[in-house]
Parts: sequence; structure tokens; C-alpha cells
Amino acid sequence: MSVLRYDPTTDEWVIIATERAKRPHDFKKATRPRVLTPHEASCPFCPGNEAMTPPEVFHIPNNERNGWAVRVVPNKFAALTPQGDPRIREHGPLFKEMDGVGHHEVIIETPIHNRFLSLMEDAEVEQVVHAYRERYLALRQDQRVKLILIFKNHGEAAGTSLEHPHSQLVATPVVPASIRRRYEVALRYYDVTGRCLYCDIVEAERKAGERVVLETDDFLVSHPFASKSPFETWIVPKRHRPSFDQITLEECRALAAVLKTTLVRLTQALNDPDYNFAIHTAPIGDEDKEYYLWHIQIVPRLTTMAGFEIGSGMRINTANPEETARFLRESTTRA
Amino acid sequence: MSVLRYDPTTDEWVIIATERAKRPHDFKKATRPRVLTPHEASCPFCPGNEAMTPPEVFHIPNNERNGWAVRVVPNKFAALTPQGDPRIREHGPLFKEMDGVGHHEVIIETPIHNRFLSLMEDAEVEQVVHAYRERYLALRQDQRVKLILIFKNHGEAAGTSLEHPHSQLVATPVVPASIRRRYEVALRYYDVTGRCLYCDIVEAERKAGERVVLETDDFLVSHPFASKSPFETWIVPKRHRPSFDQITLEECRALAAVLKTTLVRLTQALNDPDYNFAIHTAPIGDEDKEYYLWHIQIVPRLTTMAGFEIGSGMRINTANPEETARFLRESTTRA
Repeated sequence: MSVLRYDPTTDEWVIIATERAKRPHDFKKATRPRVLTPHEASCPFCPGNEAMTPPEVFHIPNNERNGWAVRVVPNKFAALTPQGDPRIREHGPLFKEMDGVGHHEVIIETPIHNRFLSLMEDAEVEQVVHAYRERYLALRQDQRVKLILIFKNHGEAAGTSLEHPHSQLVATPVVPASIRRRYEVALRYYDVTGRCLYCDIVEAERKAGERVVLETDDFLVSHPFASKSPFETWIVPKRHRPSFDQITLEECRALAAVLKTTLVRLTQALNDPDYNFAIHTAPIGDEDKEYYLWHIQIVPRLTTMAGFEIGSGMRINTANPEETARFLRESTTRA
Repeated sequence: MSVLRYDPTTDEWVIIATERAKRPHDFKKATRPRVLTPHEASCPFCPGNEAMTPPEVFHIPNNERNGWAVRVVPNKFAALTPQGDPRIREHGPLFKEMDGVGHHEVIIETPIHNRFLSLMEDAEVEQVVHAYRERYLALRQDQRVKLILIFKNHGEAAGTSLEHPHSQLVATPVVPASIRRRYEVALRYYDVTGRCLYCDIVEAERKAGERVVLETDDFLVSHPFASKSPFETWIVPKRHRPSFDQITLEECRALAAVLKTTLVRLTQALNDPDYNFAIHTAPIGDEDKEYYLWHIQIVPRLTTMAGFEIGSGMRINTANPEETARFLRESTTRA
């Protein structure tokens, strides 16, 4: 029999469909290695092709090679752009629109075309995290920006066409409704308990243990009780930090290490799956609130959303989080 | 410049990204016809293989052939099953679960393996709609059921592995949160206007005209102002009907005709794309409320959700609804 599980961070029920469940290793991809060269002449993100991107807004130098280690540029096909008026125009009561004002940047994680995060040294991942932090701090100065979302699409099934390792940042002129709802749910919890919902989840997951993938001094990595899809993985800070911009340089180092280890485990256990990750954080202006906690959500793209999910918004997860967490916990630590 | 548009039915903003926009015909699939035979020996839904499915719960006879025209069976890999206890079990305040109680049925739309809805006569589609209605009316008798969702997955990108034409029905023991929110949004609109939000949208879209695909005596087919993905298509009744179970037999006929025509247009215009559709309807027990209106949402699967959508819940639509609606409006009516 399947079970429904309640996600206390979104107020949503998820179906964990054990009737149609697969064992963790069934999600392993057929071997199809990404055969890429370290440099690709036609790649707009490879060194030497800097003119193929819009002008750079930030970079971290690579002192050894006299070039860049991480490079940030506006997205050439930006979903949102800095020009425009963020005021809402009403064409009758039912049709409201506004200019697509905001920012959409690409964080080119490395000059090396085939050096994925899971293959990097910790220090290289740390530079990527530094770039995330720098751009977050820079763009939050724009008074029109209401939320900054940093995310990554790895592989075609995850929605990217460019292979060169990169992340993205989108700064939106509205707080997305689903973020606002997470925030409201956390606020309600805070109002009735006096505590941060996410901190309580970290504690409850540590105590339960069965969904923990790994734990470091600073972070807990686990598969949520009501995971929405197989191998959904959360990286949550153990110290209370509502917003990603409060991360210290020391915490950047710790985050890089745990992100790297987590991605290595997923890569090994599932044969280099396509995946997305997103950094959930507080809306701009609410970064000091007691009731929220930034965290990273990693979603390997192993299944397809279908009509039920589109119609109901409810998810059917064909894997058991306790089993997938154990599978990752027992996989080796290093590539 | 892209625009943000507000969806008054969900309270969500959608990015219409014209910077990266494609023209409507760019979404057309490369020609890759579905070459299927009318009968497939190994198909569990083909006549003669009835023993390969769980025992049938309903059928519409095919008098000419002395067999069935439409057949409904429990899903062999059901996400929810009738056995179990719908009471919530709490394992501490953060971990709540319940048995996966409910129903999950397959509506086998035709005995003919390659006879898709878009290829059927209207009368055959009408029988499928009758089967939807019959099963809805039967399953709403189960006191544990809170919502009945009827949906269809057509093609692999839409999440189905079985080619034989079929729809599905899932009856859930909770009202999914996203349905509850649509309901609350419609209720709030009703409270401040005294009118049904969806009826007002139908009127506003008819008046605007530019997003209308087609209109019949009973239904309006249009692309929503804040369409979440390219060619998202709504079929909305012009008479006020909160719930699908209020559909009359006469309206079934009219619905079958307009559904068929809409699917033919999508199939022709986009070269037989994979698609999902879902019938949005009121939760059980709220079928008589004044402020909701059942409708069909059709989503061709032309793009991939990526990290931004996963992290923010916001959608980026790379097509302009006015352009896609015109493209469909100007396509021919019949296959």
C-alpha cells in the first residue's frame, strides 16, 4: 500500500507510491558517460570566446594561468533584464502585467569545459560559492529586486543545452507565490511554537537518522520525509541563517565541501544523472527574520511529471526516502 | 523585453520571455509519426488481453462488434488503492502520514491500439466523456474521497509508457493544496465581486478575442493571458457549472466535439505533440458552490521545467499566448 506524507514546509501532501516503487539502484542511469573535451572551440563559456557572451559583470581571477577561475555574465537570452518599469499595468481587472525587470546572470563555474562540480577540488567549488555570494550581495542593492534565486541545470533532462559547467541567478521583481507560501507556513509555525520550522526539521531528522545522507559540523544532508521525487536531497545549515547572504566566508568553505561530497555521491550512486539544484532563501528585506532558514534543494531528474501532477499539483514519488537515503549513505564518499 | 503576467486563478506571476521567444511554428515537432498498428498482441489494453488488467469496473459495450467500446479498470500500478485507513498518523509534530487510500483507474478509450482521441469520430470521444462522468459519479459515493482528478498522458514526454489510448482517474483522500488555493482565490473574488471568477474570465477573453482559439455554443477554448507554458489551452464551459459531475448528457456531446476539435488543431499545428490534459473541478462536497467552474487544461509538452521553476515555483513561458492562439485559430478545423 502507498502512503501519503505531509510536507510541513509547503502544507502539501505527497504520495509515496510503494506499489509502483522501484529499488534505489533501479534509478541508476544506463551507462552513458558525458564524453567532453576540456576545451570546445565553439563553446561561448570556454576561454578565448569571452566575446561571445555579454560583457562580464564579475570574475574571480585564476592567478596561475593569468585568466579567470569563475566568470559571471548576463544571460544572453535573459528571462528578465535591468531595463524597464516595475510598475503593474492593469488592462481591466483580470489582465495585469509588468515589464520583465530584473537580472538573469550566468555563473561560469570553471574555464574547463568538462570540469563538473562533482569533479572539482573543494577549493574550486568554494570559488563558485563565493561568486554566488558576491552576486547575491551586489544585486540585492537593486531596490526593485524582491527575490534572488541561484540555481543550476545539469544536463539536458534538467533543461540546459549548454554543457559547459555553469549556474544561473535570476533576480525577480515580485516574490514568487510559492516562496511566499513557504514563508507564511514557516511564520505560522514560528507563531505557534516560537521556533524555526527548518531548525526543528534538522533536529527531528538527526534524531530519526534514517533519512540522513551525511552530516558535517555545519550542515545536514537528508532526503525529506515527504520527498517530492526520488533522491530529492536537501542541504540545510545547522546554524540558524534565514538568508543565503548571511553566509560567512568560512561557511562558504564548509558549504563547498558538503555540496561537492553530496554531488559526488549522487553522481556515483546514480551514474551521473541530470539534476537541478536551487538555493532557497528569504525574500529581499526579510533576511533577518527568525522563522526561515536558507537551504539547497537538489532534484535529480529521474522521472517525468504527468497529468496528475499538472492537474492536482500533488506529486507521486516512486521511491522511499528512507531507502534512497540509506543507499546514498552507504555509497562511498569520494570519487 | 519580457513581461510578467498575473494569473488571477492562482495568484501567481508568470514570465512571458519574449527575449528568448520562439515563433509558434518553432514549437512544431520534427516529423516523427507514431507508427502503430490497430492491434498489438502484447498490449494489456487491446481486446483479447483483458485478463492482463485487474478486473474491469465499468464498460460501454460496442454493439457492432459484440465487445467493448470503452473499458475502465483499476490501474495495475495504482498510486492509491481502496483498502486502508484514511486517518492521519503523527510520528511527532513534523512527520504525518496516512495510508494511500483512494482510487486509481484507467479509462481505456477504445479497443483500437492506434486510435487516438484526435483520430476518433465525435461519437467515440463522447463515449469516453460518458465513461469519465460515470466513474466520477460512482467514486464520489466513497465518503473518504475528497477530490477526483481525471487526466490524460499522451506520449512518452507526457509521462506514459503505454501507447494504447487511455485516460486515468485518481480519487484522493485529501484536497490537494494547489486545488484548495485555486478555490480560495475564486472564493475571495466572489466575496468582493459577487461573481464567478472563471465566468468573468470567459467574458473578458471573448471580449478581448486575441487569445481565443475557438468558440462553440457551450464552450470557449483559449490560451490563458498568463499561460504557464507554450500552447497551454483551456476549454471552459460558458454556462456556470462548478463541478464536472454536473455535466448533462447533452453537454457531454458538446464537450466531446470541442475536445476533439481542439486536439485535432494542436495535433496538426504542432505535428502530433505529446500532451497532458486534466479536468479541473470542485472538491467533493463543494460541487454546488457558486464561485468555481470546472474546465479542462491541456498542456502540450514542448519545454522542460528547470532549476528556476523548481526553486521559485514561477514559470517561464517562451511563447506569447496571443501568437499561439492566432496560430491555432488560423489552422484548419478538421484532420
